[in-house]
Amino acid sequence: MSAGHGAPGRGDREPPLHDVSTPTPSHAERARTLLASIRTGALATLATDPAGHPYASFVTYALDGGHPVFLMSELAEHTRHLRADPRASMLVAESRSPDPLANGRVTLVGEARCLVDADQRAGARERFLAVHPGAAFYAGFGDFGFWRLEVSSVRYIGGYGRMSWVERDAFLAAEPDPLAGEAESLVVRLNHEHADALVLCCRAFTRAKDASGAVVTGVDRYGFELSVTTGAGARPVRLTWSGAVRTADDVGREVTEQIARARRVLG
Amino acid sequence: MSAGHGAPGRGDREPPLHDVSTPTPSHAERARTLLASIRTGALATLATDPAGHPYASFVTYALDGGHPVFLMSELAEHTRHLRADPRASMLVAESRSPDPLANGRVTLVGEARCLVDADQRAGARERFLAVHPGAAFYAGFGDFGFWRLEVSSVRYIGGYGRMSWVERDAFLAAEPDPLAGEAESLVVRLNHEHADALVLCCRAFTRAKDASGAVVTGVDRYGFELSVTTGAGARPVRLTWSGAVRTADDVGREVTEQIARARRVLG
Repeated sequence: MSAGHGAPGRGDREPPLHDVSTPTPSHAERARTLLASIRTGALATLATDPAGHPYASFVTYALDGGHPVFLMSELAEHTRHLRADPRASMLVAESRSPDPLANGRVTLVGEARCLVDADQRAGARERFLAVHPGAAFYAGFGDFGFWRLEVSSVRYIGGYGRMSWVERDAFLAAEPDPLAGEAESLVVRLNHEHADALVLCCRAFTRAKDASGAVVTGVDRYGFELSVTTGAGARPVRLTWSGAVRTADDVGREVTEQIARARRVLG
Repeated sequence: MSAGHGAPGRGDREPPLHDVSTPTPSHAERARTLLASIRTGALATLATDPAGHPYASFVTYALDGGHPVFLMSELAEHTRHLRADPRASMLVAESRSPDPLANGRVTLVGEARCLVDADQRAGARERFLAVHPGAAFYAGFGDFGFWRLEVSSVRYIGGYGRMSWVERDAFLAAEPDPLAGEAESLVVRLNHEHADALVLCCRAFTRAKDASGAVVTGVDRYGFELSVTTGAGARPVRLTWSGAVRTADDVGREVTEQIARARRVLG
């Protein structure tokens, strides 16, 4: 991770309360997960009039691995720009937190080209319509075509102080988190079902021995994150799954096991 | 309005059921209203490495009239880009409708410069912190500065088939809709309080003489829009206020008067 600006909170300055070797999603994985969970972005292209002026426009996208595909009208400003110069980038931003700068965002930098090969067009069509079924209406129009942004570099910002240029091959090889679509409902469910027991996990498996409360704030394939109430205020901690987790059922089973194990550890 | 692509619905192809001279917000006014109701956007700049590549990044903004102002870190990618080349544009997009292409969006094209004059900096600081009070924490940091995008041209897209390049002076002179902040709650309130009576307005003041239902879909300083159920299906209509409307109370009074007048017209 490169040096970043922003204002890290106390939780970033002090050593974490959990084991620092706890596996966490890489920036490549976080970027792929973010892109897979959203379907609109901002495209930057080079205008033709005035020539070379950077131009930001709204796009809907689907993904072909890590590369975005688009259905574009020849009448759109950005399509005319890309016909003259394929250089482009696309920003995709989350909107979870009411603090806009706490949200994650990714910029994909590359070159965008209209797909002319019949197989490539058919593949892009299938991927795009799976995410944007309403676009089937335009997909057959003569002045609409499928485009693909071939990604050459990736900038990831995960919120305050969490940012890096992600290595292209790592980005393309990374898999979106299999829990991404269910993560928000899992957070609600875990807090509802295990409100009292989660604090035991924090006391047993982290240095927050005086924990008096714990709220789950995130779930991913490698573990889950909590905000734990300590004598020194609220602090973030991260706990790891003991086995492979790919589904909501896996999460439920793992959390139940961790709580049972915490009870044994605490006697 | 310039020719646009997209897929106009039947309501756009057939002559409207209401008086076509009904005043509606101009694209300049719609763009100013949209910008005033949102506080994050996508900035397009020209990268320094590779030089001249269009780069899209996330920004928070406030407004100085129609010109956006920003608080930027010298460490941010876009700040380094703008130091080398001030050309930029900013996309701001609504996210009301679940159909992303039905939402409005604006691209402001211009040049962005760091404010060095003390009065300009103080003005930008006041405007920015009024919208982003949490940024007061950074505003004093030595590597943060206030920037302003001087707008030279404006692209407005209001959804399917409603788009134009807005004349710069008209954009700068236009006023955001005074009802914008309350429009959504007003729509809910009008439909709740006048569910049965609204259909009378449609029968009395539009060509939808067979109207069997009416739902308010929008409210602005010049009038209100409804989806009216006719023998030929749902159709959009627009009705005009009889006097000046700037507040929610004005809207309530006007709608009550229109319903009374519709009852008289229909006998």
